[in-house]
Order: sequence, then C-alpha cells, then structure tokens
Amino acid sequence: MEDLMKLRESIDEIDSEIVRLYKERMDISNHVAKYKITTGKKVFDKTREDEKLEKLSSLADDEFLKHGIVELFEQIMSTSRKKQYQLMTEHGIVEKENFTEVDSLDFSNARIVFQGVEGAYSQLAMKTYFGENCNGYNVDSWKDAMEDIKCGKADYAVLPIENSSAGIVSENYDLLVEYDNYIVGEQIIRIDHSLMGLPGAKISDIRTVYSHPQALMQCSDFFDEHKDINQVAVRNTAFSAKKVKDDGDITQAGIASHISADIYGLQVLESRIQNNKNNATRFIIVSAKRVCRRDADRISICFETPHKSGALYHMLAHFIYNGINMLNIQSRPISDKAWEYRFFVDFEGRFTDTAVQNALRGIREEAIALKILGTY
Amino acid sequence: MEDLMKLRESIDEIDSEIVRLYKERMDISNHVAKYKITTGKKVFDKTREDEKLEKLSSLADDEFLKHGIVELFEQIMSTSRKKQYQLMTEHGIVEKENFTEVDSLDFSNARIVFQGVEGAYSQLAMKTYFGENCNGYNVDSWKDAMEDIKCGKADYAVLPIENSSAGIVSENYDLLVEYDNYIVGEQIIRIDHSLMGLPGAKISDIRTVYSHPQALMQCSDFFDEHKDINQVAVRNTAFSAKKVKDDGDITQAGIASHISADIYGLQVLESRIQNNKNNATRFIIVSAKRVCRRDADRISICFETPHKSGALYHMLAHFIYNGINMLNIQSRPISDKAWEYRFFVDFEGRFTDTAVQNALRGIREEAIALKILGTY
Repeated sequence: MEDLMKLRESIDEIDSEIVRLYKERMDISNHVAKYKITTGKKVFDKTREDEKLEKLSSLADDEFLKHGIVELFEQIMSTSRKKQYQLMTEHGIVEKENFTEVDSLDFSNARIVFQGVEGAYSQLAMKTYFGENCNGYNVDSWKDAMEDIKCGKADYAVLPIENSSAGIVSENYDLLVEYDNYIVGEQIIRIDHSLMGLPGAKISDIRTVYSHPQALMQCSDFFDEHKDINQVAVRNTAFSAKKVKDDGDITQAGIASHISADIYGLQVLESRIQNNKNNATRFIIVSAKRVCRRDADRISICFETPHKSGALYHMLAHFIYNGINMLNIQSRPISDKAWEYRFFVDFEGRFTDTAVQNALRGIREEAIALKILGTY
Repeated sequence: MEDLMKLRESIDEIDSEIVRLYKERMDISNHVAKYKITTGKKVFDKTREDEKLEKLSSLADDEFLKHGIVELFEQIMSTSRKKQYQLMTEHGIVEKENFTEVDSLDFSNARIVFQGVEGAYSQLAMKTYFGENCNGYNVDSWKDAMEDIKCGKADYAVLPIENSSAGIVSENYDLLVEYDNYIVGEQIIRIDHSLMGLPGAKISDIRTVYSHPQALMQCSDFFDEHKDINQVAVRNTAFSAKKVKDDGDITQAGIASHISADIYGLQVLESRIQNNKNNATRFIIVSAKRVCRRDADRISICFETPHKSGALYHMLAHFIYNGINMLNIQSRPISDKAWEYRFFVDFEGRFTDTAVQNALRGIREEAIALKILGTY
C-alpha cells in the first residue's frame, strides 16, 4: 500500500507540472491568436500540425508511447485552435457558414407542401407547426415535396424524419443529401393508430389491412393476435382509409389517424392499436433557402468518411475533442459504393460557437462531402 | 512573422517538456501495474480518477481551461489504464469476456434455420456459408428463427442484417437485443432482383408486383418507369414468386432471386431490375452458444446511453481514447422510451486486446445495458 501511495504521489507531481505547462501553452496560444488576428492568417495549419505530431512522436521509445503522444497532442492542438477561434470571434472575425439569420421564419403567404392524402399525419404536423389555416397542399411522394420547394412551387415542406419506435425514415435522410434544401424547424407529433373499416364492420369481418409499412410494423402486436389478417403496404396511412372507402369491401380495414376516419366516413374498429402507446414522429420543416432562426441551437450535418481504417474515429474525434454534445448519429449506405457509409450527426450548438467552428473546420478538411443540413 | 516564430519556439519547448513528463508518467504507471498485479487490485478506480479530475481542474483560472484539463487527463488516464491492462495481460492476468474460443465452428450435424420459403436469399446465404448439402429448414419470421435456436431446435440461424443500398434490417438489430443469441459469423451475398411472372406473361400485362418492402424500395427506378403498376408488400421475396404461381394470374409478378423463378416454374421478365447493380446483403450467422472462432477479429456490441447531456460523447470517447477503429455505428430507438437510443457499434479487435478491454471496461461502467453481440 505504501508503494502505491508513493507512486501516486509522483504521478500527482507530474500531473501538476503538466497542468502548469498546459496553462502556459494556452497562454502563448492567445498570443498566436492575436498575431493571426492582426495578419489575417488561418487558424488551422494542417501541415504544421502534422509536422509537429511527427516530430513529437519521434521522441517516443516504443509504438505504444508514439501512439499515446499523437493522441495527446491531437487533443491539445484541437483545444488550442478552439481558443484561437474564440479570440477571433471576440475580435469580430467569424468564419461564417453561409446561412441568413432571421428573428423568426416568415410564414405569411407561405405555401406548404406535405406528402400523402388529406388526413395524413404529415398534414397534422403541418397544421400544428404553421397553424390551422395555413396554405398547404399535398403531393404523392416525399421526393415530389422536395422537388416542389426546390423549384419554388412551395416555400416549405413537412417531412417525417424519425419515429420513436420504428426509427429513422431512411428515404428522407437520403433526400436531404440529394437536394440542396435545408432543415429550418421541427415538429413532434404523437402517433395514435386507429383500425378503421366501413360503417357496420366488425374486427372479425376483416381479412386485409392496408397501411404504410412503418405503421404496419408499429402494430405488430395486433397482427400477432390476428394471424389470419393479411397486411398490405400502401404509400400512406391516410391512403389506406381512402382505399377502404373507395373499395367498399367490408373485409378491408385501414390503419391511420382517427382524423382519416372522419374525413372518409369510416368507423374506428379499435383505437391506439400500436404496440407502443407512447409513439411519436418527428417531422422536419424544410426550405430551399439557407435561413436559420437566430435562436436555433441544434445543427444537423452529414459527411462521408474516406474509405480507410480509422476514418470514422478521426471524424468523431472532432466532436469529442471540442466537447460537442452529439444528440444523435445515424449512418446510411452510400448508393453504388457497397459498405461505405454517410453519417448524419445532430449536435447542440450554433455556428458562432468556437467549438462548432473548430469541429466543422476539422471535419470539412478531413471528411468527404461535408454538408450542413440545417440549424433549427 | 518573427513574432510567430518566437511564439512557436516557446510552444515547441513546452511540448517537448510535456512529452518528457508524459513518458515519465507512463513509466510510473508501469510500476503501478506491477503493484496491482502483485496485489490483485483493480485497474479502473473511478473514484480516484474523479477526485483527480476535480483536483486538477481546480487549478484552472477559467471555465475554458477547466474543461480542457478535464479532457486532457481523461485521455491520459485512459492511456495509462490501457498500458496497465497490457502489462497484466503479459503476466497472464486477463479479464475475460465469457466466450468459449474454438478453432472453427462445428458444422457437422448442425441444423440451420432461415426465414422465408424455398429460394429466399437467406437460403442462398446459408448454402454459401454452410455448404450446398447442409441440413437447413425454413420458418415464417426472423423472430421464429431466433426462437428456434434459443430452444435448441436449430444450432444456427441465418439472418439478413444490412443491405448495401437499403441500409440496416432494423428488426434483426432489435431481435439481437431481445434474445441471448450471439453472432458467430457473417456471409455477404450479392442481390440481383428478377421480375418474374407466369410463363407467357409480358411486362405490359403486369398490374401488380409483389415483393418484400426492401426489395420494392431497391427497385424504385423500375417503378418510376412503370407508374401504372401497383406494389404490394409481402413478407419475403421468394414468397412473392410462390404467390404468383399459386394465384395463376397473368397480371401478377414477383420480385425475387432467379432461383425462385426456377423453383416455382416462373419466367424471368426482366433481370437485375434493382437500381443499384452492385447490390449486396450481409447476413449474420447466429448461435445460442457464447462461442467465437479463435481468429475472430471484429466485435459487435450495443449499449444504451444514460438520458443526460454528453452521454453519447462520453461513450464514444472510450473508443477514441483507446484508438479503436469503429467499423460502423447504428442507432435504434429503445421501445417505450421516446427519443432515447440504443447504439450498435462494430469495431476491429479481440477481447484479448488491451485497448478493447479498456474500452469495454469503461463503457460497461458508464453505459446502461452493455451487451456483447458477438465476435466473428
């Protein structure tokens, strides 16, 4: 025990010494920042940083130490840069992301597009975000909605991006990459699925249930109890209600929001049939304009990693070393590149935060195709 | 310029000094390891580490430095621990994950279960991995396959986990959490979708196409060109071929592997109709036994993060600080906990690697419900 105490004392001494040097280094870093502010020099000098890592790691006697030293100084230099960005910001020098800040989004006279027929959950999300009397219209597919805001037919699109039980709506992630449209807001809607049939129908009459594949999946417990019922996927929950109405077949039912039952004159056979009674969907509000609310505090980005070992590790290190709180990370395959991925990260922060500037600068330098999807 | 040179010289001096102290610290760390080896003490002492971070960060004059110091020493202590695990391993002390190592998996007399009907891609994956004459049978659902290996009816299950264009098969990720079954191998199969109908049918006859929802999604370009054709989801690609055969309706077609056309006596109307001509699916081989091949070099785990700010950041730091190469990261919602996530990480390494032991130890300490899904 005494041995351990002594060793720990030595470590404590070394650590105090490291802290003293670290503080001194940060202090000099401030002087470097001032120099850069005066001369307009760039903060991130990858060549110098690489040379430095090379030189310092050569002081190590073995591979383990070499690796440790590289890691240590990657972090120290990242923190140094962060400090320099902070001072530059204080001096009014900001490397701006090209987004126009507004106090609030302009909803007056806005035309809004959602996917699906009347009564879709997307319509409910739209009315909740933009108000009951907003000027909305519907299209057949999410892609059509993206296309309409791209060409100016609509100002905003409302798209489901994630369900609390089924996970992400992967197609909309992919569309955010394909189109130069930006997330400007979000709206969470509670999803309660109702089973609905023709007036007079009973559950025992039902042989076929139509709905969106995600809704069918969310009601799997119901189908486990009714193994004789066929599930058929259609493009939208509300469309299933429309189909049941149009077909006029008593053996058919749809799964949709209770609003759809009202709209199409159907009867709710059973309410809240989803497995998870606490089910919700997050919708994003998308615009073709690079705008953001001044009080936006969340940023969504995506990037591809170079196809080499350790690439994801290096990208995530930019968040870790800058103390940035990642809210979510998703990956999607890159089409036509088997087993290569595009990563989607949501994190807390604003473009004016030095930590954010530092991280984005690093990722932009090292990742393939960094794209800012929006801030909201 | 001269100013900058001077400042950089000072930084270089400080950095050499930090390296010297860092090396000294690692050297003492080796002595601590030897002490721990003698006395059987644990490597990770969270209380001492937290006290140390508290004490060192109190030396800082401002919040920025405080944060920087905490980050710096979290990394230094993680590296120290890694070194200690390394030395303990050299002395034959290994904290073992409870997996039985085997030279190769025992396939003799193995019964293998796959989901879907005869001709499913899962069957193709099974035959490729276990051999043409393996003893396989089919069940209706992925859950049934998991259940069969759990209760010993089968030795291995073959399940699709990810498609190179459509992304993950989320249900199978969730089943890996639900069941105490383990991944012991993987098999990648190239997926070429054929459109098949009754003998004599032409594409112009077709009004309805049946297939698995993912297959329908993978052929969206085809459907964009044939807007008059209805898509209907069924549980399995091969099942769509069976249905077309059974219904005997010339207006129906299925999308499945060409093997299915042979099995059900259908005619291929168009080959390789998927958008991505380079389309492949990764299947996992799952067993109820905690076994792993001695040459396994990839580990899959999942964990939930505590519901507090920075939780994901801290989990991923365990990979970053240990220099572990993450191959993939996926997230899935936790059922009944809206907007909380379970993360699935595949990474390179073996349980005997000190970096892996260090990372798993840290994650096990801080995450909720770390689960080792297998090594293969």
